[in-house]
Amino acid sequence: MIPVTANTVIGVRTPSAVYDVEIGKGLINQVGARLDALLQGGLRAGKQRAFLVTSPEIDHLWGGLLESGFHDLGLPSLTRLLVPAGEEHKRLATVERLAEEMVHHGADRDSVLIALGGGVLGDLTGFLAAIYMRGIRYVGVPTTLLAQVDSSLGGKTGVNLAAGKNLAGAFHHPLAVYADTATLATLPPAELRAGLQEAIKAGIIRDRTLFEFLETEADAVLTGTPEALTRVVAASVRVKAEVVSADEREGGLRMILNLGHTLGHAIEAATGYQQLLHGEAVAWGMIAAVTIALRRGTITTAEAERIERTIRAYGPLRGFTVEAAQLVALTARDKKNRSGTRSFVLPVGIGDAAVVKDLTDAELLQAAQAVATEARGVSEARRVSKASGVTA
Amino acid sequence: MIPVTANTVIGVRTPSAVYDVEIGKGLINQVGARLDALLQGGLRAGKQRAFLVTSPEIDHLWGGLLESGFHDLGLPSLTRLLVPAGEEHKRLATVERLAEEMVHHGADRDSVLIALGGGVLGDLTGFLAAIYMRGIRYVGVPTTLLAQVDSSLGGKTGVNLAAGKNLAGAFHHPLAVYADTATLATLPPAELRAGLQEAIKAGIIRDRTLFEFLETEADAVLTGTPEALTRVVAASVRVKAEVVSADEREGGLRMILNLGHTLGHAIEAATGYQQLLHGEAVAWGMIAAVTIALRRGTITTAEAERIERTIRAYGPLRGFTVEAAQLVALTARDKKNRSGTRSFVLPVGIGDAAVVKDLTDAELLQAAQAVATEARGVSEARRVSKASGVTA
Repeated sequence: MIPVTANTVIGVRTPSAVYDVEIGKGLINQVGARLDALLQGGLRAGKQRAFLVTSPEIDHLWGGLLESGFHDLGLPSLTRLLVPAGEEHKRLATVERLAEEMVHHGADRDSVLIALGGGVLGDLTGFLAAIYMRGIRYVGVPTTLLAQVDSSLGGKTGVNLAAGKNLAGAFHHPLAVYADTATLATLPPAELRAGLQEAIKAGIIRDRTLFEFLETEADAVLTGTPEALTRVVAASVRVKAEVVSADEREGGLRMILNLGHTLGHAIEAATGYQQLLHGEAVAWGMIAAVTIALRRGTITTAEAERIERTIRAYGPLRGFTVEAAQLVALTARDKKNRSGTRSFVLPVGIGDAAVVKDLTDAELLQAAQAVATEARGVSEARRVSKASGVTA
Repeated sequence: MIPVTANTVIGVRTPSAVYDVEIGKGLINQVGARLDALLQGGLRAGKQRAFLVTSPEIDHLWGGLLESGFHDLGLPSLTRLLVPAGEEHKRLATVERLAEEMVHHGADRDSVLIALGGGVLGDLTGFLAAIYMRGIRYVGVPTTLLAQVDSSLGGKTGVNLAAGKNLAGAFHHPLAVYADTATLATLPPAELRAGLQEAIKAGIIRDRTLFEFLETEADAVLTGTPEALTRVVAASVRVKAEVVSADEREGGLRMILNLGHTLGHAIEAATGYQQLLHGEAVAWGMIAAVTIALRRGTITTAEAERIERTIRAYGPLRGFTVEAAQLVALTARDKKNRSGTRSFVLPVGIGDAAVVKDLTDAELLQAAQAVATEARGVSEARRVSKASGVTA
């Protein structure tokens, strides 16, 4: 685990891009200075122009602070491109509208985008940068835990189709990522908890120390103690940076990042992306993966129990009502499937995971059934308590 | 110049892609066999699926022949994705519609697109391949001269915005290009002539022998003699392949491919992309570039005259009525401009060109005025002759 210093800097080194992820408190105010330094004074000299892409809500919370960093240094003012919050705006039509606005504002190939917001905003802005004039640069300033530990680095950008999430996109790495942990203080608790499921995932697949920190320090992490959160973000980023650096295009190792995601995506699709947060769906998916690993004997009962207990400690996981068979059918649409072979990630003890290609439909169905049954129970309990006037 | 053999194969070798462009008569019928070989039997084995993207018109002319090549080998039948012909369909909305259809038909990351058609279809299909599930493979089967000599290779893909052409796109190279010169027989003569302007450009910037062939054999080329056309296509492809292989991302050398294009794009934009074919607009742009080079003394009068005479031999160039100042203003929007510097390509004798960065507005305006005046004259003469009942 990385010791907490003022700011932690973690490098991503892939064949197509080399950049740093900086993690620290109060970074948003420093983005102007950092970016201008990266561009060798290009902003100050007026050679490059910066565009701030964000939602009205995030702009209200953090846009002024980011802008004041530019203002204090005498940098030219930012042009804002606003996107309404919400997954439904992560579409090609939004990208097109933003690109038209950029042309209108005179953006050229040297212009730089600043993506200020959560995962949806980051994916959308990265993709806009990927295709505007066949590719311009961007930096990420993720403001949610999920975006800080996962989606802001690795170069996966994209938008949704009606037919499914993230089905149109590009690999396009940021020039840098600035994860300001101060922004996490304004997150709704449910979003913080859901985001932490991705940190748990990072621990399970590659960092036993991170997992054990999340296991034993759940109270400090969940109350949002800045030091605890910074540790968790930095360690999670390091796991992702290492994996992405070793396998940029998901040829092999990178697939382990999908632990819990195959069923997680199916659960999200089956519930119309409305009922559960991404991290909650992934948590259910990880529980299913642990169940399968346990049945296969690739993990000990003791470790399986620790994993499940920790996932649940960062709950409660909201329920859903979907047939297990439907979930299995939906996994067939997963982008990671190639030519009819299903790849599935299983934990191999705490801190290690493996991709298996021989998972049977029966194994998947059995695990999906266990999860679907429990999730239905949670759902029904909630309905009953609601009906009787008790707050769930 | 490349000797004419049965088929000519020219390699493109860039840091991100290695592929061949094959040029010959009757190749369309061989696409199935070639593609299956490239995929190591993946089509035959049902591991990979092929989708044919084309327009109803091109499908009618050549789709059946391409398909029969698949059929004769017992390869699985192709799924068709149809796009109406025309620049107005080269938009993100079309890409989105096609991507949704692909999901519907079960296309996965191993699926392959076949782009059968002209430049618009090729740019659109290449971009669809670039962003579908963050990138799948495609092959080009260009059916116009312009697409065969220019747009089908080099990896530039994209669509138009309302604000301008090709402003959203990606670099995404094909797996291979099959240029069947038999398809050129069905081209309208004006399109053949306009496409040949790009071949003249290839000669001017890098292949004196090609230029001299076009200069002396204009009759054979313009009547569409298969041997002459195959020579011209092969030599032009070689020029582009060499330039792109040396400079994939337009850092330097690749810019010379833009000879005639800075003003050419401005003329197209000013006339709403309706009045002139791309090659005609480029021809006017090349005449302007020669004028500037002559004034600067970077080309001899004798060579400038040969260039201009040859360009006009592949005319007649249709006229237009636009103020020179408007053309100059429109060049400021050119994608190749970076941070306010204008790059402009000038011929340096026949077979050589250079990029200059110090072109003044006055020089550009003067050359634009000469071209605009002549083009207005052509336009007016045509109106007068039309009004008096004489066919222009």
